[in-house]
Amino acid sequence: MQAVALTRGERELRLVEKSRPEPMDGEVLVRTLSVGIDGSDRRIVDGEIGEFPEGEDHLVLGHEAVGVVEEPNGTALERGDFVVPLVRRPTDDADGSSAELDMAEPDTFVERGIFGAHGYMAEFFTSRPEHLVVVPESVADYGFFVEPASLVEKSLEQAFAARSAFEWSPSTALVLGNGNLGLLALARLADRPAFERTYCLGRRDRPDPTIDFVESVGGTYVDSRATSPEAIPETYEPVDFAFEATGYPNHSVEVVRALASNGVATLQGIPGSADAEIDLGEFHAGLVVENKALLGVVNSRASHFEAASEWLAETDTEALDGLITGVFVPGEVEAAFADDESTMKTVVTFE
Amino acid sequence: MQAVALTRGERELRLVEKSRPEPMDGEVLVRTLSVGIDGSDRRIVDGEIGEFPEGEDHLVLGHEAVGVVEEPNGTALERGDFVVPLVRRPTDDADGSSAELDMAEPDTFVERGIFGAHGYMAEFFTSRPEHLVVVPESVADYGFFVEPASLVEKSLEQAFAARSAFEWSPSTALVLGNGNLGLLALARLADRPAFERTYCLGRRDRPDPTIDFVESVGGTYVDSRATSPEAIPETYEPVDFAFEATGYPNHSVEVVRALASNGVATLQGIPGSADAEIDLGEFHAGLVVENKALLGVVNSRASHFEAASEWLAETDTEALDGLITGVFVPGEVEAAFADDESTMKTVVTFE
Repeated sequence: MQAVALTRGERELRLVEKSRPEPMDGEVLVRTLSVGIDGSDRRIVDGEIGEFPEGEDHLVLGHEAVGVVEEPNGTALERGDFVVPLVRRPTDDADGSSAELDMAEPDTFVERGIFGAHGYMAEFFTSRPEHLVVVPESVADYGFFVEPASLVEKSLEQAFAARSAFEWSPSTALVLGNGNLGLLALARLADRPAFERTYCLGRRDRPDPTIDFVESVGGTYVDSRATSPEAIPETYEPVDFAFEATGYPNHSVEVVRALASNGVATLQGIPGSADAEIDLGEFHAGLVVENKALLGVVNSRASHFEAASEWLAETDTEALDGLITGVFVPGEVEAAFADDESTMKTVVTFE
Repeated sequence: MQAVALTRGERELRLVEKSRPEPMDGEVLVRTLSVGIDGSDRRIVDGEIGEFPEGEDHLVLGHEAVGVVEEPNGTALERGDFVVPLVRRPTDDADGSSAELDMAEPDTFVERGIFGAHGYMAEFFTSRPEHLVVVPESVADYGFFVEPASLVEKSLEQAFAARSAFEWSPSTALVLGNGNLGLLALARLADRPAFERTYCLGRRDRPDPTIDFVESVGGTYVDSRATSPEAIPETYEPVDFAFEATGYPNHSVEVVRALASNGVATLQGIPGSADAEIDLGEFHAGLVVENKALLGVVNSRASHFEAASEWLAETDTEALDGLITGVFVPGEVEAAFADDESTMKTVVTFE
């Protein structure tokens, strides 16, 4: 079968030929439908993050996948079920436990397509059924959005939990970053009743497709060159919830100034080491005197995938079509991974 | 009646003579029993924080008080009820609403004894009953601990809420700071079953009364000159919960390194502006990849006072006796506010 993989020592993806995987006892065989590409995938190719599976000379990419069960292999799943696979697996997958693996300690898991295990950008993959989330047929066409949207669901869950010990009625939300995760997050935040007004921070000049997308879902575009996160309260309004998707280290501190009293920000970016000079006294006091919260959020679990699938089943997917700037076959992998100002979400399809 | 007050333009407290306050309709008259002194009080005297009541030339200090109802004045309270007053009042106290005033927006409240309203370090004070928490007689002797202990209760409530969207079983806690709030927090954290092991960060040489107190409640003293917060995981162990009570700006970032996976830190200090050079990339990524949380926490409401009163009713107060390094009459105000390495908690008594 065909697979898109990075080989050790290389900085380019290749289409490789691998043997079709055989499901072990308790595993199903899934035929891949499509796989989304995100910033992590590009960072893996650039050698910034990622880890090859032990003893292997290549890593199959892809962690935002949707597929269809080909061989249920005696499990409770049925042939033809549409499924989205979770990303993390316990290092010792023997017990099959996947409960809250998103909160697991480091070194107790691998991440398929990212860290120590092959991903899903191949014609077939195998998985234990507890690492698969069944989605309705109506969601299958947008199934590659389930994994990134699940990160937004987890962030919202964590944010509301963190504000659950008092009356909190948020009305405004800010997304930092107009990459594909930021834009998807904005679509989600703008679509449900929780937030009346949404903002998205970027650094682009008009005309620009990301600005068009922001406005198509009802958001307000904030140019960070004119308005830093810290200036958002004066220029626009303070925000109750902020979702960081830039990976820019200073945003972890600056976002606190963008928040309203009792506001909460979730951080999703994973930057490398970077020294900065910053007013920590103001950061510290600002968090305290207005009861603000800052939460790091990584990965997601089955319940978040289910919430994301539910949203995709209900939302107007026409808006999301505006986010998809390319659908490629595996042989077009170079074009699929290309990234310029016209790129938003690209997808590799195996259909 | 006698009151301890700071006069505009002065840097010393004075014992002043004021007329006994007359309760207005809907207010009760409370006879003060005792008032604790904390770091905020000393910062007010030093001119670092605080605000005089509008149109007045002095501020009566004191926000950690316990008293007894002298005139119920037709309210539901009874003469002889032991009460602890809340600190915040709505700017317009007419509606008497005190629900979640600890989460109120800036400029919608005053803080008695701190910010724009007289405190309780006087023989009598008046208050609407909804700003008073009734405590059992057994708690009255330690009633000045209710307000600071309520801050710990609020921090714990917020921390557990922030971790409520997944299975979280904390076993270790760290207090940053061996001032009177830090030591009281340690006593609370060490006393209840939530945490098996507790640590307290200070910068003192033995023999030292704060180290003795830390050890008397079963905590481990951590000398910050030998072990910074960031080095605690290697030297001791990562902690699930951290309570910052130093007001040292760098601790707002460094504390994240002390946390275990999924850990949560609450910040209580309110430092002034202070630039620092720090690795924000590591801070940002560290929060994210281990799902850590950082919460600013200020003030507290009636339910937290009630939880603190409950703890004081149940705990072995003998341990707390070790924290009280001086009980003074109002005429000894200078000695009561003195602060050196032998000072832990001092109290002014009106009995």
